[in-house]
Amino acid sequence: MNAQERKAALQNIYTLSGYYNSISGVLGIDQWGGLPDDGVDYRLKVNGFLNDQKRALYFTAEAEELAAYYKEHPLGENDIESAQIRAFLKQRSFYLDVPKELFDEFNRKRVESMTAWKQAREAKDFNIFKPYMKDVFELRKQIALALRPNDDPFATLVDLTDEGLSIDDISREFNKLREGIVEIRRKIEQSGLEIDNSVLKQEQDADDMMNFAKALAREVGYQDSKGGYNEKVIHAFSSTIGPRDARISTAKHGKPSLIMTILHESGHSMYGYSSNEAVVEAGLFGGISGGFHEGQARFIENFIGRSRAYIHHIYPKLVETFPAYADIPEEDFYRALNKVASTCKRTEADEVTYNLHVIIRFELERDYFAGKLSIDEMRDAWNDKYEEYLGIRPQNDLEGILQDMHWTGSWIGYFQSYALGNVYDGMIYNAIRKDLPNFSELVEVGNFAPIINWLTENIWQYGRSVTAMDLLNKFSDNGLDAQPLLDYLDEKFGKIYGWNK
Amino acid sequence: MNAQERKAALQNIYTLSGYYNSISGVLGIDQWGGLPDDGVDYRLKVNGFLNDQKRALYFTAEAEELAAYYKEHPLGENDIESAQIRAFLKQRSFYLDVPKELFDEFNRKRVESMTAWKQAREAKDFNIFKPYMKDVFELRKQIALALRPNDDPFATLVDLTDEGLSIDDISREFNKLREGIVEIRRKIEQSGLEIDNSVLKQEQDADDMMNFAKALAREVGYQDSKGGYNEKVIHAFSSTIGPRDARISTAKHGKPSLIMTILHESGHSMYGYSSNEAVVEAGLFGGISGGFHEGQARFIENFIGRSRAYIHHIYPKLVETFPAYADIPEEDFYRALNKVASTCKRTEADEVTYNLHVIIRFELERDYFAGKLSIDEMRDAWNDKYEEYLGIRPQNDLEGILQDMHWTGSWIGYFQSYALGNVYDGMIYNAIRKDLPNFSELVEVGNFAPIINWLTENIWQYGRSVTAMDLLNKFSDNGLDAQPLLDYLDEKFGKIYGWNK
Repeated sequence: MNAQERKAALQNIYTLSGYYNSISGVLGIDQWGGLPDDGVDYRLKVNGFLNDQKRALYFTAEAEELAAYYKEHPLGENDIESAQIRAFLKQRSFYLDVPKELFDEFNRKRVESMTAWKQAREAKDFNIFKPYMKDVFELRKQIALALRPNDDPFATLVDLTDEGLSIDDISREFNKLREGIVEIRRKIEQSGLEIDNSVLKQEQDADDMMNFAKALAREVGYQDSKGGYNEKVIHAFSSTIGPRDARISTAKHGKPSLIMTILHESGHSMYGYSSNEAVVEAGLFGGISGGFHEGQARFIENFIGRSRAYIHHIYPKLVETFPAYADIPEEDFYRALNKVASTCKRTEADEVTYNLHVIIRFELERDYFAGKLSIDEMRDAWNDKYEEYLGIRPQNDLEGILQDMHWTGSWIGYFQSYALGNVYDGMIYNAIRKDLPNFSELVEVGNFAPIINWLTENIWQYGRSVTAMDLLNKFSDNGLDAQPLLDYLDEKFGKIYGWNK
Repeated sequence: MNAQERKAALQNIYTLSGYYNSISGVLGIDQWGGLPDDGVDYRLKVNGFLNDQKRALYFTAEAEELAAYYKEHPLGENDIESAQIRAFLKQRSFYLDVPKELFDEFNRKRVESMTAWKQAREAKDFNIFKPYMKDVFELRKQIALALRPNDDPFATLVDLTDEGLSIDDISREFNKLREGIVEIRRKIEQSGLEIDNSVLKQEQDADDMMNFAKALAREVGYQDSKGGYNEKVIHAFSSTIGPRDARISTAKHGKPSLIMTILHESGHSMYGYSSNEAVVEAGLFGGISGGFHEGQARFIENFIGRSRAYIHHIYPKLVETFPAYADIPEEDFYRALNKVASTCKRTEADEVTYNLHVIIRFELERDYFAGKLSIDEMRDAWNDKYEEYLGIRPQNDLEGILQDMHWTGSWIGYFQSYALGNVYDGMIYNAIRKDLPNFSELVEVGNFAPIINWLTENIWQYGRSVTAMDLLNKFSDNGLDAQPLLDYLDEKFGKIYGWNK
């Protein structure tokens, strides 16, 4: 092949992978929102077929030739081509290095373990899930070792989600974060302030709440012509279906938290559909996985959505739409949304303690893969850490170790990304305010376009053609750094709880 | 290849086609219910890719060898294998005989003509649509001639939808049907009875109506574990997504016609998911296209749903759910649902005049392809036929020739299937009552299982392993015959309008 032909062959792999990803995305939405029980067996076959087809793209005669060449010449003519080459080689290595039997066995166990997890949840008994968790952790470890026999398997797994980040860097920043949060929580406790957040538990009409949340997402910048809503799923997620098509799936309900859920998913989706044309052409549209994607969602949800300025902006419309809220003053509504209190459930946590939930899981995983903690000891370790970090002890396993589905297999080595997203957001928040010093005023008057434009310009447009570190290095000299997040939290919650007058 | 290898290779084509069909089915639901405007371009590429992949299955080296062998040996070891061979050769001929450029041009024009049709509808002006209609009809004709150079192109097109039926047979039975209906309408007119159907125009709560309709479909036999509802599309349809997975798409609204829509689609869907295991294994699950599929839907909708016995069965629950109906006596509700009156719009027609709408389009298409009618003359011919057959003349083109989307390209040579479905139903109705003489009593008490079992046993289980004529010949000696339908209509409407005491 000459250079021209290689380029075309590599491009073809990305074009076709893009089609398969788009199909899988639609099937994924269908799986949660439409697929009936008796359709599952056939869907598993269709999914298996799609996986095989996608894998086959990396093992044609042309792909073999590409791989041989690019191993020697990993740099393309420009950043985008280099990104194509890097991701092609990485994906091909994954297929090559992980024996198909191992991967298939892992996938079988994953399905079994999901079933066992559901049963264990019903019985609130970790012991039912334990043997399956042992299996999937062990198989996941074997996969990691197959990929990089000489590396810490946990580092390998983390790199699959958050490419380029080292365990050491994450551990260092998470320690800093944990200590900073302990300090913030101490100050909150000292303040003696008790916030009443009972308003968040009142159910309003679900259709009204959904329409209200959609209107807010639209106002922030989520374009209906590039997305849409599937309202029939249990847990919320976003799917990038095409370069200009990213959808929101959620469960419709009448509590105000739905607003935050929709804003969160609109962040994922805007990131998903905002790649520039060159990135789209190259088939690298969408967003990079792990913490960075999460960071975009949490920036819209927290740094905009839960800000004082934003609540001021939406309050008049909120009480007009939901007269039941008219008795709650704006400031009280804001405080209710930002009450800091330990909960056992991660997904119900506030912006401050949320990070501790994530750090707990990260530490447990890290210790498991370092051989310091067995699955048998996992439940007690979980409960002890909740007591130590959050000051509460789960009353049962459903409140505790069985609450997240991540450890049923698919997302081992994934949890760090949730807190990394917040760390990135702290850094992004610093950078954006250098260019838009009037950030809060823009939010307060509902002029989101400059903010969305900044995010598009500086982050979203690059799609998967960059790594998280590439982006961070553009607007920070310190690499990964939890300090901006801590500064933001200290300032915000200091205002609420009174130490920051 | 030896016999074993041939079998496996043929099976493989069906297995993979099944996967592609399943994917296309889910994308089809998404296209109407989820796909945003800016996602369309990419979706067209994904669809093109899927079509190319499916086509490629028929042109591998193995497929070439299969085709050469099966042309000489078209009969398999059993009916199912014979059906596989027949459909394989037919599909391959289609790909081979229709030049790809012609087919691609047709598909381009089809998209353009859909756009022009929408614009013409807004302007209520056929002239805007006319040049596009000329193109798609001409291209469709060329496709037919490419497939069978020596046959009447209309016959070829009809055979693509209703395999094995001749134009002559259809014309003969449609003439009989038309004359019979003219006679029934004469008797209705003579009766002087004016039925008040204003109840059908009252909107109830859309969610309540949808839930009520779903409960009725469930009671008739549509299993939630094998299907489900997408409530966001403009026009109703059913999609067979897998061997045990057939979904209903519809627009939710509060009028009682929603009940009939859901029963109709449940008929399509039950047919779609009820193939027997051997048929499923062979990849021939689902239902045969055209009139026979339509017949299954209309059997549930009309022969059950619009029957006196069925209305008696559902009436108590109906007035309990919708107190607004409590003033309407059961008999009046039944009559309102069955009022015979000419309308310009096919989809709003009653069971009697519906057939005339279809016959008009069939005759116009037939005359066009016979060179007796040009597209320029089509609007006047349409209006004249409405005046002649139905006694009303459309006031504008939106009420008239622009009402259906079929002639934007995809469904030329398709209309006959709607009336054929009714003709089949008449024959099925005769046959089922031989085995279940208490058919009406079963419906009246809501014991639908024997009926669904009969349909499954005699029709649905065979999926696409048979032709419509294969099935009809099992329970009738007369081939295609409109008389049973006419007898049914005469008896039913004679009771309503009083000539059948």
